[in-house]
This record gives sequence, structure tokens and C-alpha cells, in this order.
Amino acid sequence: MRAAVLSDGRMIVRDDLPEPVPGPGQVLVEVKACGICGSDLHFATHGADMLAASADLEGMPDMDIDLAGDVYMGHEFSAEILDAGPGTEAPAAGTLVTSVPVLISPGGIDAIVYSNTTVGGYAEKMLLSAPLLLPVPNGLSAAHAALTEPMAVGLHAVNASRIEPGEAALVVGCGPVGIAIIAALNLRGVKTIVASDFSPTRRALATTMGAHLTLDPAADSPFHQCQPAVVFEAVGAPGVIDDILRRAPAGIRLVVAGVCMQPDTVHPFYAVTKQINIQFVFGYDPTEFANSLRAIAEGEIDVAPMITGTVDLDGVGTAFDELSSPDRHCKILVTP
Amino acid sequence: MRAAVLSDGRMIVRDDLPEPVPGPGQVLVEVKACGICGSDLHFATHGADMLAASADLEGMPDMDIDLAGDVYMGHEFSAEILDAGPGTEAPAAGTLVTSVPVLISPGGIDAIVYSNTTVGGYAEKMLLSAPLLLPVPNGLSAAHAALTEPMAVGLHAVNASRIEPGEAALVVGCGPVGIAIIAALNLRGVKTIVASDFSPTRRALATTMGAHLTLDPAADSPFHQCQPAVVFEAVGAPGVIDDILRRAPAGIRLVVAGVCMQPDTVHPFYAVTKQINIQFVFGYDPTEFANSLRAIAEGEIDVAPMITGTVDLDGVGTAFDELSSPDRHCKILVTP
Repeated sequence: MRAAVLSDGRMIVRDDLPEPVPGPGQVLVEVKACGICGSDLHFATHGADMLAASADLEGMPDMDIDLAGDVYMGHEFSAEILDAGPGTEAPAAGTLVTSVPVLISPGGIDAIVYSNTTVGGYAEKMLLSAPLLLPVPNGLSAAHAALTEPMAVGLHAVNASRIEPGEAALVVGCGPVGIAIIAALNLRGVKTIVASDFSPTRRALATTMGAHLTLDPAADSPFHQCQPAVVFEAVGAPGVIDDILRRAPAGIRLVVAGVCMQPDTVHPFYAVTKQINIQFVFGYDPTEFANSLRAIAEGEIDVAPMITGTVDLDGVGTAFDELSSPDRHCKILVTP
Repeated sequence: MRAAVLSDGRMIVRDDLPEPVPGPGQVLVEVKACGICGSDLHFATHGADMLAASADLEGMPDMDIDLAGDVYMGHEFSAEILDAGPGTEAPAAGTLVTSVPVLISPGGIDAIVYSNTTVGGYAEKMLLSAPLLLPVPNGLSAAHAALTEPMAVGLHAVNASRIEPGEAALVVGCGPVGIAIIAALNLRGVKTIVASDFSPTRRALATTMGAHLTLDPAADSPFHQCQPAVVFEAVGAPGVIDDILRRAPAGIRLVVAGVCMQPDTVHPFYAVTKQINIQFVFGYDPTEFANSLRAIAEGEIDVAPMITGTVDLDGVGTAFDELSSPDRHCKILVTP
């Protein structure tokens, strides 16, 4: 079978990969759509940094990945069931499903994110865990179902913020994570959603997805134009957290959803003086993932405006390049 | 009257200062005891940095202080009432009081912390605000009443942490702030209080004040020896926050009570991966201040072991020097 893999920092296509064989509790699926995540771009560029930081980190499992080998990626997928492993109860063949990107094997639990062995969604076929499968309801398309995962990231960030509808929110950065946060804030009934981004295209998408006011930080500090109770950092670049600490009103809650891979400089004095709370967030829990699918399938969140491109496996490398320009794309789907 | 003032980075005594005159709503008091706070030492050394950081900071009032002039300090005081301003209702002369370090004047509200004009507790006499006075109850000594303020800092940090008695706490740094946190954790009924400091003297005091286990971080990482739910950072030096993010278990709540004045380097990746919450804290509210006085006066917190020295105004400069050595002192009181 075919798959796009990360090889020596570039996405290339392998034509002759063995088809995965489902074990007990697993299903073989045909990938219908898989979104390209910003973290995949990050990993392609800064994978060595991430692995080094991960190795330094105590209290978390190691990321056991060899960058000299092919790396499978793709964790925002929808897929159709082809076959089930021995003695495995699963939805019927042909059922469209999605799942949290986790594969349960006799050897343990593997994240379907970056791996030398566990195939992800940038492939014709992959394995999923039968107990984790969520059938896609309401005739939702495979393309829209593939947005379940990134929208769950926004839902989790907003849940972690404990924001109340009457509290004003500022979302800094309107890439896919910022947009998912805006959609989740809107779903929660937050009455003042302000979004900030340098790109006019992204600001327009923010408005479409539920922002009540958009700001260009090149024109003036967002904090001169709004007084948020909760700030969502969805950029993930060095310097952004410190800039928020310096400019934000006292007492804000800052939710950091961007993933800055590099060391970053902050002034603790700013945060202490203002008694700021910072909640760092990552991923989502299975309930949030299921709620994300439900909200999309029931039309509470319309993800259609986020999909700005579709490519086949041969187009993944070019798509990675194009996504580095924020003005052109939000989410590109791979349809293997 | 006499006062110890910061002049050109050193504490010196002025002998010929005019006695302050209480206005309406103010009282003139004779200072009985005033603790030397680590923040005063910091300001003496890094005052210019703090003023520069404060000037950069948006959303907070400016610190309008001229380091070329004398700076009054001393915000951990108890005092005896001498006289009240015109038409001012106040406790009788001779009453021992304490107060949050704030002076209300016709011109506005001034912090009694660092000022070129508002005299603090390193002086024979000072002004206080009648509505903010708390008479010292239960015959509590002036020396112990002066600990109300630093113990309120610990109470506030612990309240902000929302720690439950069954959650394990690790206190990193056993200077006066760490010790106040340990006392407040003990008062809250927290069943596992672990304290970490390089100094054996400070570790012994931590045990006296309520720590159940003390650790020397030079021997091994505290996180190899305990699994706290809540970590209190009470050091305030560069690098400590990042070290905690790197070593702590996933999901901890980190309360930053230390005040690092310099820029600091952190890896947001560590905090994101572990979904850490950081609550930066500062000061206390008036209720916490009153509760601190009550807890000391009712014997719930015994502050006696914290007082390791007493000096008069002429000894303030030497006391500042001695406090830089953690092995000798916790709290030195000035008795003008």
C-alpha cells in the first residue's frame, strides 16, 4: 500500500509498504480523510528539538522515535472499516468511523501521532482500536468528520479555562488551533470573543467561525482595544507568552494552547505583580473528542469554512510547504 | 525623628527627619517592631531593575520612585497609637495595632512599601490609616504581631492553590515566604507537607513550622522522593520555575510565590506536555491579613521560632547584610 512518510525532514511517498494486519481488538480501515496538523509541520522541522526536550522531561513516557528512519504521521482522520481482527467486535465493514489517535496492542498503547511503526492517517490503510471507534452519525461527510480531532483541541482548551458566558475572551493567533478555540467559545455561549492575527484571511475566518471582533496586532496592542478575562495563546512562538504577561490586565487567566518548542524568555515579575494564572493545555479527553464529533454532526459547529484544500498522498509534501504561509490555508485534508 | 533609609543602595540612618503629621482619617503611631522582608533586600540590590520592569508593565500603576533620593521601607510592622488626625475616629492612644501597609491620603492611596515620601516601619514614627487599623488582640506581643504581614503572604498563596487536605504539597525554598506557606498548609490541615532547601538550618525550621518531610535538593531531586499535587515556588531565582516544569509530575498546580526580578528562561513544551497550571501570587487581601493576625493571636501559628534576630535602627544596614546568608537568619525584627 501507499503512504506519505517523513524521511530526512521531507514528506515523501512510499509505494510498497506492507498492508497492516489487525490483531485481536483491532480493525483495518481505509483512510477517507486526514487533516494536516500544525504539529506535524513543527515535527518535520523541529523533530530533533522535540525529541531532545522530551528526553530531558521527567515524569512522562519517552518518545521512542528514530529520525533516521521513516516516520508515520496523521492523527486527524476519518476512515471506513474494512476488516476486524480475530474475535473482535466492531462496526460492520463499510462503516465510517473516527477515533482518538491511539492504538492498543498486546505490546502496549501507542499514540498514532509520530511513529516508526504505527501507521497514521497519511496512508491508504491503517489500524484502529475497536473499543475506541466512534461511528460517524447523521450522514456527516468523511471530510467534516476528520475535523473532530482539531476541534476537540479547542473544546479542551475552552473547558480548561472554565470561562463563563459573561467573561470576555481574547484569542491570540487564528491558525487551526485558534479557530477551534473560537468555535468552542461560541458553542459555550461566550458573548465577547475577540480574535487577533496579523493575517486578514485568518481574521475573516475567525469572524466566520464566531469571533465578534477581530484585531490586527500590527496596528495596535489587542489589550489597548479589549479587556479580556481569559486570554488564549494559540501561536506557539517564542516571546508571545511574555508579551501577553506584560500587556494583559491584572488577574487574567491565560490558557496556553500553542506549543512553543524552543526555550522562551519570560519575566516572572510581570505575572507575579498581576497574579496571572497560566493553564497549559494539550490534547483532550475521550469525552471531549466524542462531544466534538457530536457538535459537528449536529451542525452546532460548521467546519466547512476551515477546509481550504484537499490533496492526495502525492500532494502531502507540497501541502506542508503551502501551510507555512498563513494567508492561503487553514486546514488541508489528505484523501489517500 | 530617626529612620533607616535606602540611600545609594545602602541602608543608613537619618537623625533629623520631621515627625509626620496625621491628616484626617490618619493616625500617628510609634513603631514597636518591623520585620525585614526579602523584597526589601531585593529592592536595595535590584531596585533599578524592578523600576524598569514596572515601567514596561502595562495595566498596573507606575512605581514613582527616585532612587537618587532616600527611600523609606518597612511594611511588616506593629505600632502603638500616639495621636489621631483631625476628626478621626481611632483606637485610644497606647493601643497596639497593625495594618495592611497602605496609607490613604487626600492625594490617593499609597503603598507603605518603597517610597520617597511615605514613611515605613524602619522609623521611630509613621502614619497609618484609621479605617485599616487592626488592634492586636489577646495580649500578643508587638514582635509577634509584626509577623502578621509575612504570614498573610503564605496564607494567600495557600488559599490561591485551593489545596485540599489530602493533596501532597511540596514547598521549594524555606526562606520566610516558604516558611509562611508551610505554616499556612499546616493550618489548613494538609497531611503531607514536604519542604526542600539547601540549608540545614532552614530545613530544621521548616520541620518546626509544620513540614512532615524535608529534603536537600543537592542530594537528589525532590521529585524523585515525593509526588506532590501542588508545588509552591518560594525561591524567586532564575531557573527554578523551568526546573520544576521539567521534573514535576504531570498535572501539578504550581504556585509561584517567589519574586524573580530578572528575565527567566522556560520551556513551554514541558508545561504543555504535562498540562501544568501556574498560579502567580502576590500579597494578600485584607481578610487574609486579618485571618493571619487572628491565627497568630490564638496560637494556631507559633511565629516565635521564625524570629532569629532583633536590631535597632542603627543595625538595619548590618541586618540587610546578614540576611543574605540563609544559614543564620529567618526573620530579623527592627525595634526602632
